[in-house]
Amino acid sequence: MNPAEYPVLNDPGVLTEVTAMSDRYEKALGDNALLELDALFYNGAETVRYGVGENLYGFDEIQAFRRNRTGGSPPREVLRRLVTAIGKDVATVDLEFQRIGSDRIGRQSQTWFRSPEGWKIIAAHVSLMGTTS
Amino acid sequence: MNPAEYPVLNDPGVLTEVTAMSDRYEKALGDNALLELDALFYNGAETVRYGVGENLYGFDEIQAFRRNRTGGSPPREVLRRLVTAIGKDVATVDLEFQRIGSDRIGRQSQTWFRSPEGWKIIAAHVSLMGTTS
Repeated sequence: MNPAEYPVLNDPGVLTEVTAMSDRYEKALGDNALLELDALFYNGAETVRYGVGENLYGFDEIQAFRRNRTGGSPPREVLRRLVTAIGKDVATVDLEFQRIGSDRIGRQSQTWFRSPEGWKIIAAHVSLMGTTS
Repeated sequence: MNPAEYPVLNDPGVLTEVTAMSDRYEKALGDNALLELDALFYNGAETVRYGVGENLYGFDEIQAFRRNRTGGSPPREVLRRLVTAIGKDVATVDLEFQRIGSDRIGRQSQTWFRSPEGWKIIAAHVSLMGTTS
């Protein structure tokens, strides 16, 4: 491939679009807006979500987990966020958060891609930082 | 965009290439092969790695962390791995692992992209699963 064919990092338009999607996700999480959260994940068997206490494979497992989670995700504040665009159709969002009343730092990583139905999360990982590596 | 312009999931050639890269990464991790591990991460400020006990931003922080980590990563067995290709130039690798002698399940998520110097990790997240979500 010639250099023009490799994905360019941090296309400004992609950064703007995916930052807005991340904002939507944070709002939906805070509101426990289940239909909106469903709409932000890719509806396929390929989608994976590692949560603080669960490993979920496929959209159906992720959807069922949210339906069974009384009260939704604990309220949290985002401390730092990094959005990186990889070419025109993929971006990663990595952020640190702190749940209200907790002194532990949480981390959330997402990989988004541009589907015919809009930007969707295809891989996500949420964890609380441990005290050792 | 017409449908042909959206990224297709799970191109067989990309799956083969990135699965081989994941195998290389696991071997390098087990061997604590620092130069090989360096070579598998994208050398840029955009690269992020959330580890079990640390949040690292940029290639330099990741490289320094490995240099300061006596003995490298604890030995581990991979229990399950899912590789998903997003178009021709990006793929995610999500896996579950168990450290030898531990009963906790670990999770590792990576986003790889095709750079002019080959496939590189631009985002990674490693954690141990908690007992609550």
